[in-house]
Amino acid sequence: MDAMGRSTKPSVEGSKKPRATTAPASAPGSGADVGSDFLQLDIGQAPPGGRTAWLADRLRSAIADGRLPVGARLPASRVLADELRVTRGVVTEAYRRLAESGQIAGRGRLGTVVVAAPAAPRDRARGTAQTGPALFGSADREGVVDALRALPCRIDLSPGVPDLAAFPRTEWLRAERAVLAGVTPADFGYGDPRGALALRRAVTGWLARNRGVRADPDEVVVVAGVAQALGLLAQILRADGIRRIAVEDPGSLGARQQLEYGGHAIVPVPVDAGGLDVGALRASGARAVLLTPAHQFPTGVVLDGERRRRLLGWAAEGGVVIEDDYDAEHRYDRPPVPALRSLASEGVCYAGSVSKLLAPALRVGWLLVPPDRLDALVAAKRYADLGNGILTQLVLARLMDSGELERHLRHVRLRHRRRRDVMLRAVEAHLPGARVHGAAAGLHLTVTFRDQSGGFRDTDLAAAALAEGVKVHPLSWHRISPGPPGLVLGYAAGPAHDIDEGIAAVGAVLRGLRSGR
Amino acid sequence: MDAMGRSTKPSVEGSKKPRATTAPASAPGSGADVGSDFLQLDIGQAPPGGRTAWLADRLRSAIADGRLPVGARLPASRVLADELRVTRGVVTEAYRRLAESGQIAGRGRLGTVVVAAPAAPRDRARGTAQTGPALFGSADREGVVDALRALPCRIDLSPGVPDLAAFPRTEWLRAERAVLAGVTPADFGYGDPRGALALRRAVTGWLARNRGVRADPDEVVVVAGVAQALGLLAQILRADGIRRIAVEDPGSLGARQQLEYGGHAIVPVPVDAGGLDVGALRASGARAVLLTPAHQFPTGVVLDGERRRRLLGWAAEGGVVIEDDYDAEHRYDRPPVPALRSLASEGVCYAGSVSKLLAPALRVGWLLVPPDRLDALVAAKRYADLGNGILTQLVLARLMDSGELERHLRHVRLRHRRRRDVMLRAVEAHLPGARVHGAAAGLHLTVTFRDQSGGFRDTDLAAAALAEGVKVHPLSWHRISPGPPGLVLGYAAGPAHDIDEGIAAVGAVLRGLRSGR
Repeated sequence: MDAMGRSTKPSVEGSKKPRATTAPASAPGSGADVGSDFLQLDIGQAPPGGRTAWLADRLRSAIADGRLPVGARLPASRVLADELRVTRGVVTEAYRRLAESGQIAGRGRLGTVVVAAPAAPRDRARGTAQTGPALFGSADREGVVDALRALPCRIDLSPGVPDLAAFPRTEWLRAERAVLAGVTPADFGYGDPRGALALRRAVTGWLARNRGVRADPDEVVVVAGVAQALGLLAQILRADGIRRIAVEDPGSLGARQQLEYGGHAIVPVPVDAGGLDVGALRASGARAVLLTPAHQFPTGVVLDGERRRRLLGWAAEGGVVIEDDYDAEHRYDRPPVPALRSLASEGVCYAGSVSKLLAPALRVGWLLVPPDRLDALVAAKRYADLGNGILTQLVLARLMDSGELERHLRHVRLRHRRRRDVMLRAVEAHLPGARVHGAAAGLHLTVTFRDQSGGFRDTDLAAAALAEGVKVHPLSWHRISPGPPGLVLGYAAGPAHDIDEGIAAVGAVLRGLRSGR
Repeated sequence: MDAMGRSTKPSVEGSKKPRATTAPASAPGSGADVGSDFLQLDIGQAPPGGRTAWLADRLRSAIADGRLPVGARLPASRVLADELRVTRGVVTEAYRRLAESGQIAGRGRLGTVVVAAPAAPRDRARGTAQTGPALFGSADREGVVDALRALPCRIDLSPGVPDLAAFPRTEWLRAERAVLAGVTPADFGYGDPRGALALRRAVTGWLARNRGVRADPDEVVVVAGVAQALGLLAQILRADGIRRIAVEDPGSLGARQQLEYGGHAIVPVPVDAGGLDVGALRASGARAVLLTPAHQFPTGVVLDGERRRRLLGWAAEGGVVIEDDYDAEHRYDRPPVPALRSLASEGVCYAGSVSKLLAPALRVGWLLVPPDRLDALVAAKRYADLGNGILTQLVLARLMDSGELERHLRHVRLRHRRRRDVMLRAVEAHLPGARVHGAAAGLHLTVTFRDQSGGFRDTDLAAAALAEGVKVHPLSWHRISPGPPGLVLGYAAGPAHDIDEGIAAVGAVLRGLRSGR
């Protein structure tokens, strides 16, 4: 920070209109004579042994937040190395990493210039100096989903995101106006850690209407999405002596990481056409299981009636069922599948959110647990954050109570269905021989390949697709035990022509892989 | 839930306009013949051995959320006991608890009726069947702050809340409109766990202008208030092998509980007129300390210059300083006190929030940690909730960038100062002999009593004040080691006449306590 006063570029602060300040001004020329004016880089901030990663990260940040726009020229590696008092290899390696992820490129006499900036600067992960191939090849998947999200691309077919362009901005603003007009001063104070009563009531109405779940508002805890729900459950189950949680295999990588971070060992249980293998769950000895009964992630299968009964029998004997009802409201060619929680409240922890209904960035969900775990859950939520923010809760409550959210859902369902159909046609055209799973509902489909030619790794396919600007999830990310290669393909977020073009690009790189190019 | 179809009162759902539903309707008369139509009480939901507490809690909930409005009559205890198949003692004891907290009362022939409902229904804690005296007398303080918050009162002099009636609703809505007009679809997706770049930039500007802190947006992690900041720090410090955290004594009960819930043993370190005793900290052997250097909670003292230097020396040797800068922006008769973080970034974890600037219910704060802890913090925040909600972040960023938040601060500072002056006069008039601490800044002041007459317990004083409808914090809640009785009195939230009347009521009950009435 010593060098901040000598910056030759306008700093974040400097770009604002001047204002009276109580902060001491940096005297020009003050501070030690170390560091670079370029981005005010100070090698003293780099962790020991991590200078290259640190420098690459700083450059990536500057590109992402616009300090280094497309076309900006980077200092010659020799010059920057001198200024930072590092070896030239540190700088060239950092440059190489950014070049590999497509953000900078050598332009002959022009030197090294910025050639691409991420579309969404805030969608950038931290501490990940990983490039595409390194990322997909990594055995350590910690933060890998964030890292992929952060990389720039032309077409994003990642799963798990609804049509965000359809976000009901006008209705949101109208509801916010009404909320701000009606909210009491006390509502702005510290509140109930379970969340606003208005939203807990609205959620019970929503669940009764849409998911067959009957609950009392007193049983609902508003959480910051299913991610927080899983984190809080991991915590209270550990406090209860549970150390191992069974999960579906294949199943969500993100959810698994959430539980592992919460201190649990993961027990994989196979999934087949009828959903989770309840016999295998029983045989595993795990006392808790996380599953997605209405639309299994990523295969899309529905937990069948017989298995539901057997699973609830297991729960009645003391097993803990965590039902992640993440996208059940999105269905196209099949009747609604009721939530497990609608069949039994004992032993079932039920989690849902608005991430797939409206937008993940709202970070609002709900968690219902059996009565004997409610006090522990409320304490966990209290100590996590004292409860969710109030205004978003009250706006959502209005949108739910007024029927606006159901209208929105009907609206996006039509768009999602059309996009799914485009993707199905594109898969048929461009990925011959691929088997499609779980297209009847949700926001994604899964394809698997049964290759005659000895097969390939789906991580290689995903990496090659990313090199062509198309982002997909390799199915193996979401597998614990090995299985045929595949891809998990989100179709809901983007326009139809992107879907067709993206799948065509995947088809082209797949042909390349198979022909051994 | 079996009895839901037979309810004689309109249920939450029933009060809404009818709408197409996919939920199965409850058949009237279906289900087992157990439970009461009154509030659809089902004793099967009560935990074993906790029926009284459960029933009291259900009644309290129904009063709080309006299902039992003021004037509503409760069933005769004999009738309700029969319906619930419990002994009559369970019902009479539950009724007694609610009568003791002033929510219901016997009215002769009319039976037992609801006489008071909480002012803010959502401000209700769970799992606390505590009445005022039980609450203040409790040795187990888990959830005690929430429980006090949940109780009804006439005048609330709890500390830690700014003038909530001054919340800038118009400016908020205007900023929200601009945000909704400018936000991209990608902003509604999963984002950077550190928070929106726009807010991280705005926070660095705010901290530079107002707290003398220079930081890069990449170092800022947006959190759900200081409570979450402490929870995340507790987690990453434990992962680093730290198991004991030193805290100020006296110091914030809530912060202490946060760290204890996070698995840490608490090491009390005395506070005197110069702030935390750094020598005692060093002697304690603790490797981390939480403190409030700019305006110590609850005493209001400032950490003096010599101790700052010694504390930073301790940090340079490897100690971890957690600086809770909770209300430093509020000052009246003294120059600004810079943040410790402005003097050194190594070894200092800096936490602040908008809770005291705008409203606690927004649940937004920020946490800056030294570079070697940043990756661990980002991972902890990712697994906690994947990041804060986007809209509130972007609105706050606009209010900070436009200068609106500083205007708001100047505006409320005048109101807060007037209210503080009213409280100082009221203390002088009604609490003779009380010693006032920390009135030069903040949102509260602390009074201590040095009684000639052998003393009294401040929890008794607070309980007696609550019985008169006035809510205050006993100083002993925030003490670890014993000390003179006292009160922590918030003056910022309410109007001047409430302050005067509240302190007068405290004075009256104090005279009663002293005369042994």
